[in-house]
Amino acid sequence: MAQRKPVCLVIGAGSGIGGHVGKRFAEGGYHAVLCRRTDDEGLTRLVQDIENRGGTASGRILNAARENTIEDLVSEVEHDIGPIEVAVFNLGAQIGDRQLADTPYKTFELGWRLAVFALFRLATALTPHMLERGRGSILVTSATAAVRGNAGQHSHAGAMGGRRMLCQSLNAEFAPRGIHVVHILVDGPVESPDTLGKVVLGDSGYQKFLEENGRGKDRIIIPAELAESYFHLAHQHRSSWTHELDLRPFTVLPCWNH
Amino acid sequence: MAQRKPVCLVIGAGSGIGGHVGKRFAEGGYHAVLCRRTDDEGLTRLVQDIENRGGTASGRILNAARENTIEDLVSEVEHDIGPIEVAVFNLGAQIGDRQLADTPYKTFELGWRLAVFALFRLATALTPHMLERGRGSILVTSATAAVRGNAGQHSHAGAMGGRRMLCQSLNAEFAPRGIHVVHILVDGPVESPDTLGKVVLGDSGYQKFLEENGRGKDRIIIPAELAESYFHLAHQHRSSWTHELDLRPFTVLPCWNH
Amino acid sequence: MAQRKPVCLVIGAGSGIGGHVGKRFAEGGYHAVLCRRTDDEGLTRLVQDIENRGGTASGRILNAARENTIEDLVSEVEHDIGPIEVAVFNLGAQIGDRQLADTPYKTFELGWRLAVFALFRLATALTPHMLERGRGSILVTSATAAVRGNAGQHSHAGAMGGRRMLCQSLNAEFAPRGIHVVHILVDGPVESPDTLGKVVLGDSGYQKFLEENGRGKDRIIIPAELAESYFHLAHQHRSSWTHELDLRPFTVLPCWNH
Amino acid sequence: MAQRKPVCLVIGAGSGIGGHVGKRFAEGGYHAVLCRRTDDEGLTRLVQDIENRGGTASGRILNAARENTIEDLVSEVEHDIGPIEVAVFNLGAQIGDRQLADTPYKTFELGWRLAVFALFRLATALTPHMLERGRGSILVTSATAAVRGNAGQHSHAGAMGGRRMLCQSLNAEFAPRGIHVVHILVDGPVESPDTLGKVVLGDSGYQKFLEENGRGKDRIIIPAELAESYFHLAHQHRSSWTHELDLRPFTVLPCWNH
Repeated sequence: MAQRKPVCLVIGAGSGIGGHVGKRFAEGGYHAVLCRRTDDEGLTRLVQDIENRGGTASGRILNAARENTIEDLVSEVEHDIGPIEVAVFNLGAQIGDRQLADTPYKTFELGWRLAVFALFRLATALTPHMLERGRGSILVTSATAAVRGNAGQHSHAGAMGGRRMLCQSLNAEFAPRGIHVVHILVDGPVESPDTLGKVVLGDSGYQKFLEENGRGKDRIIIPAELAESYFHLAHQHRSSWTHELDLRPFTVLPCWNH
Repeated sequence: MAQRKPVCLVIGAGSGIGGHVGKRFAEGGYHAVLCRRTDDEGLTRLVQDIENRGGTASGRILNAARENTIEDLVSEVEHDIGPIEVAVFNLGAQIGDRQLADTPYKTFELGWRLAVFALFRLATALTPHMLERGRGSILVTSATAAVRGNAGQHSHAGAMGGRRMLCQSLNAEFAPRGIHVVHILVDGPVESPDTLGKVVLGDSGYQKFLEENGRGKDRIIIPAELAESYFHLAHQHRSSWTHELDLRPFTVLPCWNH
Repeated sequence: MAQRKPVCLVIGAGSGIGGHVGKRFAEGGYHAVLCRRTDDEGLTRLVQDIENRGGTASGRILNAARENTIEDLVSEVEHDIGPIEVAVFNLGAQIGDRQLADTPYKTFELGWRLAVFALFRLATALTPHMLERGRGSILVTSATAAVRGNAGQHSHAGAMGGRRMLCQSLNAEFAPRGIHVVHILVDGPVESPDTLGKVVLGDSGYQKFLEENGRGKDRIIIPAELAESYFHLAHQHRSSWTHELDLRPFTVLPCWNH
Repeated sequence: MAQRKPVCLVIGAGSGIGGHVGKRFAEGGYHAVLCRRTDDEGLTRLVQDIENRGGTASGRILNAARENTIEDLVSEVEHDIGPIEVAVFNLGAQIGDRQLADTPYKTFELGWRLAVFALFRLATALTPHMLERGRGSILVTSATAAVRGNAGQHSHAGAMGGRRMLCQSLNAEFAPRGIHVVHILVDGPVESPDTLGKVVLGDSGYQKFLEENGRGKDRIIIPAELAESYFHLAHQHRSSWTHELDLRPFTVLPCWNH
């Protein structure tokens, strides 16, 4: 019965990190609740893919920027599906490189709304449930921009820097009460048809990039492999918890190097 | 004639850092434009104090959280008073220690609005003027919470972390074009009748604290002394610019120590 | 045949992290080569313990501070036992809290010799073998003192800060050539009869500490649990490598908090 | 009378930062004691240059890597010349980019001996004198390699990382007792005929580099300008001390950016 399984809730479950992390937890015995803003069809395929492998999952179209969406989702999942043992917060706020003069107020605000405020709302809604059970994991995907600003990154860095400090604050309050918060710094390009493919490189550029850097070359993060680390982090013994780590392909210069 | 002087614009000019930095720049030949949210009387006293010492200054009551206030201010000062050679961004967003459950959404959002968005708005309005002149300084007061989260600091750290990364991004875009952005990490208590006095300790608690730690003991930041470093930073030669520094009383353990 | 197994070489294999990491890799199919400075008897017990569980291991008494010891060890293991696929560098350099005036030159130098120079020597001897195979992992145990100095930590921090930057440098040169270097920041007390027991708290103090904080309470790092993360790190897919992470008990305030 | 002046002791006083910092302090009323490893003639010119401007200075040829040299120097200066109010530790340990295989043990050890151990020795010898007076400043020139490793920087980063953590440790012990320790991260090329000229670019390369980036362009740190910040730091009021800051030309991307 799906209802009795522990739930892994993924906010931001597309074809990249979020979807593959959902699959990994489903494989590991969790019911995956997969949320994304658009593409009902892609979402259905993801759920079916999990079910075809013998797992269970549900899909939700969710606009995390809108009032009460995250709050209602948490209530509903806790009530109707099962205890959220693991939440994966995987909303991005990258808008590409833009000079300050080309960064509208609305864009800057939306970056914060998705990257910081949505996590604050999720934590506010979810931690009471986790505190009652005395345990739970909140795994937060983050980016290089959380640890260093850069030209053209006013919106992204201004948001991600807040996300990281919020994670440290959540961890300081909740770790001693059994909730494991992890800030996962993804410091390299990720194989992701939706984001890197459609948004950044375009379809044909993306195919070429994959041929040169993808499977076998491994110069781009393969999200199914990255998902192993998410799963490991959620299952670290509480005597030995990680709060921050970085991940990147072996060929990618870390963000602190030139 | 005041109009011909270079202007030092201070956003957040109370009885602590902001006011004293304004005084220091007035003493150094700038016309100080001092802005604060409330206390018209205190503002008038500050302006008179500067004029009594032979300097020039103007005061403005300004609600930085409200639309267009900062933008209009920049236009008006540039048009009516003089070129803003130095801007001191000194808005705080400390709300005291609060658990997540005691941090309302409105409070969290206001923290971001003052700590991050207002700086983004100031930079958007001011940098075109500075770029035209090929020079200028933006000195940003920041806090320990910009480099580490802490229990009870969800709002403050979530905001200040964004402020720091925004400063790095602004610096990366604008430093090579002549605008000096500095992130000034004030990592200790500051002698400030308004903030530390009224908000944090109360009047009598504050008096006691001053006696034990103030002048002569120097265990609390004396803003007139701190202001010397602000003035120095704004006058570093462009071959030798500082982007980040920390400051604290000699007796205060730095934020990275226990 | 033990000779054909991949080797996990542990430099600093006592009753805490090193020994348990060795056990974990033995359990995972590696031949563990366990090195420590003293206590032949304890070393023999460790090897037997591994063999009793069906694994294979060898023990070596090794003075890492002495010339050629590490270099000879690497040659010998590669020649006589098997390819060193994983090296765990686990030498500590903690000498307790000592004021500068109580830190002799010899002590300060020994700290560097063990914490930094021995790692440099290991990397110099081992990387040619790993480069030939196009793969390998070097897992470096590190400490809070690698990221912040502190009163009484002149020797420890002066050494560990160097260790961390050396790890970043090794990673920058060798990661793109297939060698995974990880800096593992162990930021909390570790259950370790030798170190915490004999050196720091004394036998009876240590027993009391264990009762209050050990198994079940989990307020102290249980090295067998920590070892799971070492094993995971050595098996991350090369598209998704971690270079730095921290670990601590859930109740321990991270090093960046007060 | 030179003997009664406060002394500014510069360890590493060549034609770049060290020499110009010495000049700045001499101009500000200090007797400068300038130490360098070689080039007696250059040293004499530096002393005369200071004297020609009405200041006072002494020169010492000093091999800081050799036993007792720093210790004897401190005794002698304190006894014969005057109280060392400010010490500028300006020894570099850059050896250019070298792969691990091209970094001899001796070179790696010498890097540590100059970058870390010499500072530890200076602090050990000097702090008792400063503690007696209840005041003093130790200004430590540092480098990008103190905050991030890099390929080819095994020796430099392995040394500078230790230097930074040692500075934090010294600061933690001594700041509350009146000694101001500053870690000055010089994050860009410096106009320095000896280092950048002779060692790195060669004479003609250096001239070309100066023409393209030097005076007027200001894309290279002008040490006489940088020296202003050293002087400011040594004179910060103890209620408002900086422990760490970075400096670079306005056109140079900070070390944390790509």
